[in-house]
Amino acid sequence: MSLKKKPVTGMRDILPAEMQIRDYILNQIKDTYRSFGFSSIETPCVEHIENLLSKQGGDNEKLIFKIMKRGEKLNLEAAETENDLSDSGLRYDLTLPLSRYFANNAANLPSPFKALQVGNVWRADRPQKGRYRQFVQCDIDILGDATNQAEIELILATTTALSRICPGRSFTVRINDRRILRAMAVYSGFPEEDVEKVFITVDKMDKIGVDGVKAELLDNGYGEGAVDKCLDLMEKASDDVSGVRTMGELLNGVLEEGAAENLAQIMETVNRVSDVDCRLVFDPTLVRGMGYYTGTIFEVSMEGFDGSVAGGGRYDRMIGKFTGIDTPACGFSIGFERIVLILLDTGFTVPGGNGKEAWLFEKGMDNERICSIMKEAMEARTQGRTVLVAQMNKNKKFQKEQLGKEGYQEFREFYKEELK
Amino acid sequence: MSLKKKPVTGMRDILPAEMQIRDYILNQIKDTYRSFGFSSIETPCVEHIENLLSKQGGDNEKLIFKIMKRGEKLNLEAAETENDLSDSGLRYDLTLPLSRYFANNAANLPSPFKALQVGNVWRADRPQKGRYRQFVQCDIDILGDATNQAEIELILATTTALSRICPGRSFTVRINDRRILRAMAVYSGFPEEDVEKVFITVDKMDKIGVDGVKAELLDNGYGEGAVDKCLDLMEKASDDVSGVRTMGELLNGVLEEGAAENLAQIMETVNRVSDVDCRLVFDPTLVRGMGYYTGTIFEVSMEGFDGSVAGGGRYDRMIGKFTGIDTPACGFSIGFERIVLILLDTGFTVPGGNGKEAWLFEKGMDNERICSIMKEAMEARTQGRTVLVAQMNKNKKFQKEQLGKEGYQEFREFYKEELK
Repeated sequence: MSLKKKPVTGMRDILPAEMQIRDYILNQIKDTYRSFGFSSIETPCVEHIENLLSKQGGDNEKLIFKIMKRGEKLNLEAAETENDLSDSGLRYDLTLPLSRYFANNAANLPSPFKALQVGNVWRADRPQKGRYRQFVQCDIDILGDATNQAEIELILATTTALSRICPGRSFTVRINDRRILRAMAVYSGFPEEDVEKVFITVDKMDKIGVDGVKAELLDNGYGEGAVDKCLDLMEKASDDVSGVRTMGELLNGVLEEGAAENLAQIMETVNRVSDVDCRLVFDPTLVRGMGYYTGTIFEVSMEGFDGSVAGGGRYDRMIGKFTGIDTPACGFSIGFERIVLILLDTGFTVPGGNGKEAWLFEKGMDNERICSIMKEAMEARTQGRTVLVAQMNKNKKFQKEQLGKEGYQEFREFYKEELK
Repeated sequence: MSLKKKPVTGMRDILPAEMQIRDYILNQIKDTYRSFGFSSIETPCVEHIENLLSKQGGDNEKLIFKIMKRGEKLNLEAAETENDLSDSGLRYDLTLPLSRYFANNAANLPSPFKALQVGNVWRADRPQKGRYRQFVQCDIDILGDATNQAEIELILATTTALSRICPGRSFTVRINDRRILRAMAVYSGFPEEDVEKVFITVDKMDKIGVDGVKAELLDNGYGEGAVDKCLDLMEKASDDVSGVRTMGELLNGVLEEGAAENLAQIMETVNRVSDVDCRLVFDPTLVRGMGYYTGTIFEVSMEGFDGSVAGGGRYDRMIGKFTGIDTPACGFSIGFERIVLILLDTGFTVPGGNGKEAWLFEKGMDNERICSIMKEAMEARTQGRTVLVAQMNKNKKFQKEQLGKEGYQEFREFYKEELK
C-alpha cells in the first residue's frame, strides 16, 4: 500500500517562498516585542483535557483535537463516552496555557510579567480558504499589572510591530470596555443575567448592521424600549476621548467608578506617546467573542484591508481559576496568518532576501577542483554570504529557474575546462 | 473544581532564561544552514496515522500520541480496536513528514532540494531527566542528490553550525555505510535475512562492549565462527580513510562496487574543505537505530561530553514509499535539546544578552511625566535598545532581583519629586 502524500485534512505544507515571509514577519514581531521588554516563553502544545474544557475557550472547545489515553489508561471496553478515552488535547489558543504557566511558575517570574509566546494552535474548524486547522498565534501578555499601563504598553508594542511589518500603512485601534458594555445593557433595561447573550447579538454589528442587530434582539424576546435605548446610547458618544467621558457621564451610577476615565486615559496616553500612524477610536459596539474578557478590549485594523489584524483585552479572572487568587492579566494577539496572507497577496518580497548565490559545477569534475570550489564557498559563508554549491543538472536553464523561485539571483558556473 | 497547574506528564513549561538560550542556538543553526543554501520548510505537526504506522519509524511507532477521530467518523460503539478511533497522530520525527512533503510538492521545488526543518515532535517515552515527551528537532536534508556531494554538504554545514554554537570545542564525526555493515555480516557467514537483527546487537557496542555483543550474538544462536569473523573484521581496519579502503579490499566481491571509495571520498573531501576542528573517523561498528538508512550513516560527538550531539544518514527508499519512485535522500539532525542541556549545564550566557534596561517609575506619578518617560523609551527602542517601563513595586529590591534573572542589569528610577 502506498502512503498518503497530502497533508491531513485542513492542514498544509509550507513552501520555502512563504516560509521566508513567515520568518521575516516573526522576526520583526519578536524584535519589536523584545525591545519593549517582553520575554519569550513556551508552553506544551498538549494540554490537560480538563483545562481545555473548562469553559474558558467558548466555542473553540467544540473544535478540540483530543488525544487518546495510552497503555493501561485506555480502556476501550469500559469507555462510555468520548471523554473516557482522552486525557489531553491540542491547545486551541495560547491564553489558557499561559494562564496555567503563570499559575505554575509565578514564583520564578518578575511581577508584572511581560510574556511573549509564539506557537501553533489547533482548531478543527471547517476547512476554507485562508483558514487552516493548524495555525500560528503570536501573543503578548502582561500579567500582574492592574493599572492601565498594561493596556498602554500592549497597544504601543503591537502597533509598533505592525507598522514595522507594513510600513506606510495607517492603523485604527478600536477600543471599548466590557464594563461599559455591561453598564449600557443594564442602563437600557436588559436583565443583568442576559447581558452575555445580548453581547453575542451586538457582536454581529459588523455583519448584519444596526437593523439586523435590532431585529435579532427583538426576535430573542427583548422589549423594543430596551433595544432602542441601548442602540441609541451606542450612537450618542463620539468616537474619541471625549466620547468615552460623555459615555461615563451618561452611565453615571450604573458604570463602575473610574472605568470611563481609565479608558480615556489609555487613549490619551497612546495618542501622545505613539509614533505610529494609528488612530484610537472608541467603539461602544465592540464586543469580541471570548467570554473571559473582564475590562478593556481592543481590535486593530489596517488601512485597505477588511477585518482585524490584531486583537485582545483584559481577562482578570482566568489565572484565578488555576490558583484560587485572581491575578490581573491583559493580552494582545497579532493575527499572524492574516498578515502573512496580506503580504503574499500584495506581492511582498523580503528585504535583503536577494543576493543569494548558486554555484553550479559541471558533472564529472575532478575532486581536486570541487574541493577548491567548496573551500571558496566556505570562506564566502563566513563573510555572511549565502552560497549554494550544487552539481549542474542536464537542464541548466530549468535548474536556474527553480532556484530563482527560492531567491537565487546570482549564478556562477564552473566547467571542467575553463571557458575562455 | 480548580484547574491543573502542572503541564501534562512528561512535557514542560520553558522559562525565559532557557528560552533565551534556545532562541540563540536556533538562530545560530538557522543562519549557518541558510548560508549553505538550505531553505526553511514546515510540515503539520499532525500526520496521517497510516503514514506514522508504516514501519518507517521503528520503535518510535509504539510511542505515538494518537488523535481521536471527530464527529460522525468517531463511532465508539462499532470500534473494536484503538486504531478504529484514530485517523491521525502527532509526528514522532521530521523525516517521515519531510518525505511526504517532498512527494507532495516536488514539482514546485528545485532538484536537488536542500531542506531545513525545525519543529516539535512527540514521543510518549517514559519521562526521565532531560528527556521529554515534546521536544524540538532540527533537521537538514538534501533530496534528489544521489552523489556524495549531499553527505559532504551535510557534514560541513552541521559541524560548522555546532562549532559556532560551541566555539573552541573539537568534534568527532564517526562515519560508516549500511552497505559495509551488511557486507561484513554476509562475508562473516550470517544469514542474509538476519542482517538487521545482527545490527541491533552490534548497535549496543557502546553500552555492552565487544564481549557483550559477542555473548548476545551467541545467545541468539549464531555460530561462534561467524561472530568471531565479524568482530575481527571490525577491528582490522584503521579508523581513517585508508581503513575504509582496506575494508573495501577485504570485502571485495561482497560489498557493492564503489561503496568503499564513495565513503573514502566523503572523508577526504570534508577533511580538505572543513575549517572546523573536527576529526572524521571510520567506525565499522556504527549502526544507528532507524531501519530506513540505506547507505552512509554518521554521528557527531563533542569533546568533553558523552553521547552524540548530531546524527544522520542516507535513506534512499523512503520517498518511494509515497511516490512509487525511489528518490535519493540524505539527512542530518542536530540534537537540539542535548545541546541546550550542555549549554545550561556549563553556565552559558547569551552574547549581547546584557544591556537590557528597566525603567521604573514611582507609583502615583502624574500622567504627564509618565508620558514623557514612555516617549523617551520609544525613542530608545527605535535605536535597538531594550527598554522595559514598569511601575516601581513596594519591594523595589526584590523587583530588581527578579528582573536581573531575566537579564536586566541597567536600571533607571523615576520619582515624583526629582532626587536632588
